[in-house]
Amino acid sequence: MAGTLYTLGLGPGDPELVTVKAARLLREAATVAYFAKAGRSGHARTIAAGYLRPEVRELRLEYPFTTEVPLRDPRYAEGMTRFYEDCAARLAEALRGGDVALLCEGDPFFYGSSMYLYDRLRDEFPQEVVPGITAMSGCWTRAGEPIVHGDDVLTVLPGTLSAERLAERLRGGDAAVVMKVGRNLPKIRAALEAAGLAERAIYVERGTQATERILPLREAGDGPAPYFSLVLVPGRQRPR
Amino acid sequence: MAGTLYTLGLGPGDPELVTVKAARLLREAATVAYFAKAGRSGHARTIAAGYLRPEVRELRLEYPFTTEVPLRDPRYAEGMTRFYEDCAARLAEALRGGDVALLCEGDPFFYGSSMYLYDRLRDEFPQEVVPGITAMSGCWTRAGEPIVHGDDVLTVLPGTLSAERLAERLRGGDAAVVMKVGRNLPKIRAALEAAGLAERAIYVERGTQATERILPLREAGDGPAPYFSLVLVPGRQRPR
Ligand SMILES: C[S@@+](CC[C@H](N)C(=O)[O-])C[C@H]1O[C@@H](n2cnc3c(N)ncnc32)[C@H](O)[C@@H]1O
Ligand SMILES: C[S@@+](CC[C@H](N)C(=O)[O-])C[C@H]1O[C@@H](n2cnc3c(N)ncnc32)[C@H](O)[C@@H]1O
Repeated sequence: MAGTLYTLGLGPGDPELVTVKAARLLREAATVAYFAKAGRSGHARTIAAGYLRPEVRELRLEYPFTTEVPLRDPRYAEGMTRFYEDCAARLAEALRGGDVALLCEGDPFFYGSSMYLYDRLRDEFPQEVVPGITAMSGCWTRAGEPIVHGDDVLTVLPGTLSAERLAERLRGGDAAVVMKVGRNLPKIRAALEAAGLAERAIYVERGTQATERILPLREAGDGPAPYFSLVLVPGRQRPR
Repeated sequence: MAGTLYTLGLGPGDPELVTVKAARLLREAATVAYFAKAGRSGHARTIAAGYLRPEVRELRLEYPFTTEVPLRDPRYAEGMTRFYEDCAARLAEALRGGDVALLCEGDPFFYGSSMYLYDRLRDEFPQEVVPGITAMSGCWTRAGEPIVHGDDVLTVLPGTLSAERLAERLRGGDAAVVMKVGRNLPKIRAALEAAGLAERAIYVERGTQATERILPLREAGDGPAPYFSLVLVPGRQRPR
């Protein structure tokens, strides 16, 4: 009897922002799997720590790149495809022995790496996905900034897009969230300026975590931001 | 000593999708407030039911309109402003006696009515907001549809916008979510068709609840949809 793959969204970082359902499945889990960068403990694994049984079996899925390979380099796509194939094979083997809980930061179906395993394993094993609080929800809440009201339109963009594409999609919108900031901060700033939104923009680093930083984008330096950062542009309509 | 206003996001409907933090604050609450339509129990109140103490004090905030007043009618805006003023006064009175937990469906800062009270009360009382799983996260998870990958852009639109504005913002985007469907379904369908996205669109009604319905938009009738429904357009990039 094949096990079920439970893909658990664990939210933006504060362990209390895990859902009651994910907390229950973490407590019951005999085997957990999670992505991690070399030398790091893995963000989702850190969020889950307090919920796991001491004897839990762990499958660490370590990303292949330590130095950054540019996203558009064909070696990046090839390396990642091979990595996901390998992860799927390891999970399949574990699933033949019983259930596996795959731990994910935020919400799994929202720019989550777990989707690459979900797609590869969906024909062979039963799956259940548990949604999580997205990083953006955690960040706008901590910033005290309602993001959209009434007729506001929200645009969510990955900072990995070109400056032109960013500015094009930002123009004429109301509220915006730019994910995947990192080294893209100067480009994101330029695109927000081109779209006339830079003044309202807020920069949030490690939202809901102990080392959280929240400041107006204009006060954030241009040095590379950490991986866990995003930019918020609250909508213009005020709640009255 | 003034109490604190806790604004609690309770997710899309399944009570297990409440966060551990909101569940704790619900269990501790001496007074809860919630919005409800006349004759209804209130969606957020229903989600919270199993977490509340039997002796909890309840402040029911009943929306003023029973028959639909068009959104653009000045009486609508006036009536709603008066309603929110009145709710804020009732909450302020309760807060002078201690903490109050305001119950919200989904995530409070994402098109939530609670923002109107948050803004009115923020100068007078300490506040804490707890983010919740958004309706859209609950719906794309239940539909088994990863919404965005890689470089995908997500556009979130209220179905109350004009057909022209909807089509304008949908065109050239990747993934989309249309909220507040209700009577706007035929207009939303026309806008998705104009933007070439109708074929991929999925209709979700009462996502994560017992009466959930999920079907391709083309199979959903044109009769008015219930209030708790939305339309998803998953991004084009497949996870490989
Ligand atoms: C691969 S995406 C995963 C998103 C996640 N699945 C979600 O639902 O939010 C990673 C990006 O999420 C954002 N992120 C995740 N956690 C964050 C946090 N605690 N604070 C700020 N940004 C965060 C960053 O922009 C990061 O580059
Ligand atoms: C005023 S908005 C509130 C949104 C909420 N704060 C959130 O975070 O999703 C109400 C709209 O949310 C959507 N909605 C809420 N719960 C839903 C559910 N369980 N299934 C489908 N749509 C839902 C509907 O489009 C509805 O018109």
